[in-house]
Amino acid sequence: MKRIAILTAGADAPGANAAIRSIVRSAYHMDMEVLGVRGGFAGLLSDDVIILTSKSVSGILPRGGTILGTSRTRIDEAQVQTIREVMDRYRITVLAVLGDRETMASCDLLTQHDVPVLALPLTIDNDINGTDETIGFDTAVTTIAEALDKLHTTAEAHHRVMVVETMGGATGWLALYGGIAGGADFIVIPEVTVEKDKIVNHIYRRRESGRGFSIVVIAEGAKLPWLSNTEGGVGHALAQEIQDATGMETRITVLGHQQRGGSPTVQDRLLATRMGMELVNAVKQGITGKMVALTGGKFELVNFDLAAQVKMADKELYNLAELFY
Amino acid sequence: MKRIAILTAGADAPGANAAIRSIVRSAYHMDMEVLGVRGGFAGLLSDDVIILTSKSVSGILPRGGTILGTSRTRIDEAQVQTIREVMDRYRITVLAVLGDRETMASCDLLTQHDVPVLALPLTIDNDINGTDETIGFDTAVTTIAEALDKLHTTAEAHHRVMVVETMGGATGWLALYGGIAGGADFIVIPEVTVEKDKIVNHIYRRRESGRGFSIVVIAEGAKLPWLSNTEGGVGHALAQEIQDATGMETRITVLGHQQRGGSPTVQDRLLATRMGMELVNAVKQGITGKMVALTGGKFELVNFDLAAQVKMADKELYNLAELFY
Amino acid sequence: MKRIAILTAGADAPGANAAIRSIVRSAYHMDMEVLGVRGGFAGLLSDDVIILTSKSVSGILPRGGTILGTSRTRIDEAQVQTIREVMDRYRITVLAVLGDRETMASCDLLTQHDVPVLALPLTIDNDINGTDETIGFDTAVTTIAEALDKLHTTAEAHHRVMVVETMGGATGWLALYGGIAGGADFIVIPEVTVEKDKIVNHIYRRRESGRGFSIVVIAEGAKLPWLSNTEGGVGHALAQEIQDATGMETRITVLGHQQRGGSPTVQDRLLATRMGMELVNAVKQGITGKMVALTGGKFELVNFDLAAQVKMADKELYNLAELFY
Amino acid sequence: MKRIAILTAGADAPGANAAIRSIVRSAYHMDMEVLGVRGGFAGLLSDDVIILTSKSVSGILPRGGTILGTSRTRIDEAQVQTIREVMDRYRITVLAVLGDRETMASCDLLTQHDVPVLALPLTIDNDINGTDETIGFDTAVTTIAEALDKLHTTAEAHHRVMVVETMGGATGWLALYGGIAGGADFIVIPEVTVEKDKIVNHIYRRRESGRGFSIVVIAEGAKLPWLSNTEGGVGHALAQEIQDATGMETRITVLGHQQRGGSPTVQDRLLATRMGMELVNAVKQGITGKMVALTGGKFELVNFDLAAQVKMADKELYNLAELFY
Repeated sequence: MKRIAILTAGADAPGANAAIRSIVRSAYHMDMEVLGVRGGFAGLLSDDVIILTSKSVSGILPRGGTILGTSRTRIDEAQVQTIREVMDRYRITVLAVLGDRETMASCDLLTQHDVPVLALPLTIDNDINGTDETIGFDTAVTTIAEALDKLHTTAEAHHRVMVVETMGGATGWLALYGGIAGGADFIVIPEVTVEKDKIVNHIYRRRESGRGFSIVVIAEGAKLPWLSNTEGGVGHALAQEIQDATGMETRITVLGHQQRGGSPTVQDRLLATRMGMELVNAVKQGITGKMVALTGGKFELVNFDLAAQVKMADKELYNLAELFY
Repeated sequence: MKRIAILTAGADAPGANAAIRSIVRSAYHMDMEVLGVRGGFAGLLSDDVIILTSKSVSGILPRGGTILGTSRTRIDEAQVQTIREVMDRYRITVLAVLGDRETMASCDLLTQHDVPVLALPLTIDNDINGTDETIGFDTAVTTIAEALDKLHTTAEAHHRVMVVETMGGATGWLALYGGIAGGADFIVIPEVTVEKDKIVNHIYRRRESGRGFSIVVIAEGAKLPWLSNTEGGVGHALAQEIQDATGMETRITVLGHQQRGGSPTVQDRLLATRMGMELVNAVKQGITGKMVALTGGKFELVNFDLAAQVKMADKELYNLAELFY
Repeated sequence: MKRIAILTAGADAPGANAAIRSIVRSAYHMDMEVLGVRGGFAGLLSDDVIILTSKSVSGILPRGGTILGTSRTRIDEAQVQTIREVMDRYRITVLAVLGDRETMASCDLLTQHDVPVLALPLTIDNDINGTDETIGFDTAVTTIAEALDKLHTTAEAHHRVMVVETMGGATGWLALYGGIAGGADFIVIPEVTVEKDKIVNHIYRRRESGRGFSIVVIAEGAKLPWLSNTEGGVGHALAQEIQDATGMETRITVLGHQQRGGSPTVQDRLLATRMGMELVNAVKQGITGKMVALTGGKFELVNFDLAAQVKMADKELYNLAELFY
Repeated sequence: MKRIAILTAGADAPGANAAIRSIVRSAYHMDMEVLGVRGGFAGLLSDDVIILTSKSVSGILPRGGTILGTSRTRIDEAQVQTIREVMDRYRITVLAVLGDRETMASCDLLTQHDVPVLALPLTIDNDINGTDETIGFDTAVTTIAEALDKLHTTAEAHHRVMVVETMGGATGWLALYGGIAGGADFIVIPEVTVEKDKIVNHIYRRRESGRGFSIVVIAEGAKLPWLSNTEGGVGHALAQEIQDATGMETRITVLGHQQRGGSPTVQDRLLATRMGMELVNAVKQGITGKMVALTGGKFELVNFDLAAQVKMADKELYNLAELFY
């Protein structure tokens, strides 16, 4: 009988539990057994392994976080041998790894050493290559958009600028999608360098046309060479620059780890559920060494070396977003 | 200078305003003018036409409903001539119609008479052919899933069955997606006939395995020949049958028109925004007689005769959903 | 060392877990021990008792339902002796009961037999006497108001009536508060008999003044003698009558058990937390035989015979609500 | 015929529109007329006055912000005469002012000069004296609690501290109530000075007892003498200190103006509606020079000199909150 061991690795994201539930229930329908590894790869290295039944995953679909816990341990070659031993000891057919881009690099290493592994893309950052969407992204975008909705309803009487700092160290997916969905008046992402004058002039133009209220969204990893002091974060620095340049009251919102939390959206629940089914299907067919991906509306299996590369935010969409400024 | 006239027709759906905003802002960036027709085709027949500027659509992105109003009037051949005259009088280049499946049939008629029209698929029912998703569907599914989440948190101490009736007269998209996303224990849709025993036995099996609480989702258009008295709705009739057959307390929730309301989800805002851009792009290229569609993750233009056909719910997914019962 | 045993009885309500957490944490700060009884009074009769530590209640604050489970068993005199024996066996100083109005009658019986018991008013119905508010009421009202908000955003183009049936078998608190908070156009509660003409004429007047859309909220326990066939619920029957009388399309929403679910509102979390503290404070002072109440913004202890009486909905407020129709 | 003129002044808060709607509808039922002043006192000084009918306020109940706009202009003695003239010109019987604590000082000045004014306490800060609650407070607390809920669901695997900065320049109401409702592990408010060691040791103790994850809530106006560099806000400075002292990864969330936005909660809708009714009732009785207050569950009228004083956060509750750390 085939036996799948699930682990979540890297930063957590909403939808992890929905994916775990899907793998467990799909596996039992196909007469496979399922184990759960607690605390990511570290748990595997320290034998923290439990049995997951259909009932263990009852009620977890709408919950944020992950019932298995996670850790950031990236594995090295020395650890591959230990992982193989643990897998043998527990008679694990395939390791089902749910994680972020860095986790896919670990999966790539395991695959190179013939350790049987399959993975699901789980990250709010949406920066995993080879898939159009990652589990958790839509929920995080929703958190950003709801914050912008709230900012929009507050008084517009004054000439005031709101700067909102989102997550996204390497890529601007969250800022871009959250900004568009929340009706931002300017979006700053790591992929595109913007001159200070462009932002300031845009705020001026809005004020002149009677809209004294502007919302600027910036990804935490945005690199603007003209920001002098980013010790308190780029959002804070940008707010200071705008206030100095325009004389308008400028306030900051730093969304922080809220973006990793909350109940997954319908979109993320469905994506996690479908991807979990696809993973079990691959196990059934004896396939390993692949990540489940969604490309052009279809589920596919892609290689880990591809998945581990950074997928940059869509610049064409970034340019289109300017239509709404 | 090109001039677009927007109208919303048929039952409304969340995301209509996001789409209107997108068309208006995209059009002004391309130096086109935009008019708004109030009250659907009826408004066009009675000259209820206003000017829409970039500022008219400020702040409408997160709002449910439609600022233009709607009506269910399906047009006939006699009205086509009047519509043409109104369009000439207002020098309208293209009519941009946002509406449901029946509306696409009206657009088909207009196209057959060479009236220049483009459309966006706007309906919570997701039953328009030629597109993977319609604007409003994700929000309605979210409303259903949130209702199921609430039902799940209430006491499971008793052997109790909850029947939830969703919208969906001809197709089961809402019940199917809402049911999966909300973790339903049984889903009944118009596309699939289910024996009473199958439902009852499933509820028994769950009770025997210690889960005395079951949630059954049924689309309002489901046709179960063994339901005797559906005067109070199929949900009510199904609840009665289950209670009689199992002796378990069975309660009903009828979601009703709530499913048409609420602020659009991120998914619907982005879909509406992207589709609005695509429509204006088609106007720029001089294309008419098409509906904007999303197929395999790509935006396309499809013919109205195709769009006006019913798209039935995905039976393969329905069968997969049983894995989670 | 004093030892408190907590149990939840009757229909559950949001905030139960917040109250349990509060009792546990407050008790440990005062060097008391806490047990949890699973499944209400039935659990006490069958020795289903666990130990609750500060850590057992970690993370339960925002969760709906109750981690202890509940049952509807109303106790009789024969059971009182068994309860006393179980309490002796587990060396329980005080039984802390969280429950609805009927549960307060059971607490009254226990008190008459000198079984030491304290209670918190936990019910979405808000019908417990002696307290201004019960835990769970605000959350249920919020669920109703959000449903009405969604109905309000959907198309108002047609002359259409929406009937919304809320819980409330004996009293109209939920319908009244939910209706006011959600901007209902007419509210029907068990405490007040309304003529059919009054409702129908009001809907007519609204239509004549240009508001063709009306929302009527009715409590499930409302008794309108002119409703002919209430087999499918009073909401359904009322919708039918209105449609027949006005010729306007009339649709029904039955909120059902959703109203018992969901994460408690801030108001309910604070009320549950404060009341839990007060209960432990009473234990410390050696007081028993009382329910914690909130009266005029102050926490008090009231007798069970008072609490077990029905508190009818505020008729003065009902009359004031007419101002907003 | 009596004529009321409504204006909103100071920072806006959710529930303003619910209050405006209540005043308008209550007034028309009592045969009074209602005007709306746009942009606060500034609008009164510049004749920006509109007529409000029952229909003008249709649909505004659930909306954040204020349909009348606001401004921060505090009035001086020179302006009182102009205000009186405008009121005479428009034949205004009473000025109905919705605003924050500073606004009550302006109302006090007007009252001293015999200008007829009545007011409602509208501020998220809850710092207006003489009333237990202000309109907008519950909604802002809800925003804080929801952010904390999201933080709680994200991974607890690492030893990590989350610092959340709330509004509250002079008082700690928001931090205190939001912190309790959201299950914070430490709360810092302007009213209480805390030693660094107390916070750090508490975080250590939690880590030792297996809870490596701590959430610290701090009001933006908290004054901790041991915070070295608060240029980027006290939240950022506190996070830095905790990280330096504990070596634990510490992240910051700055909620910012989100706290002023969003749809009002049921609690705020009901409070605003009831207070609006009370204000109109006072007009009917010919009373002026008072603010509507809620004290001990009862509506009262209090003097402006009292209301303009700061109401500090409840220290007893602050101490009780420690039970839950």
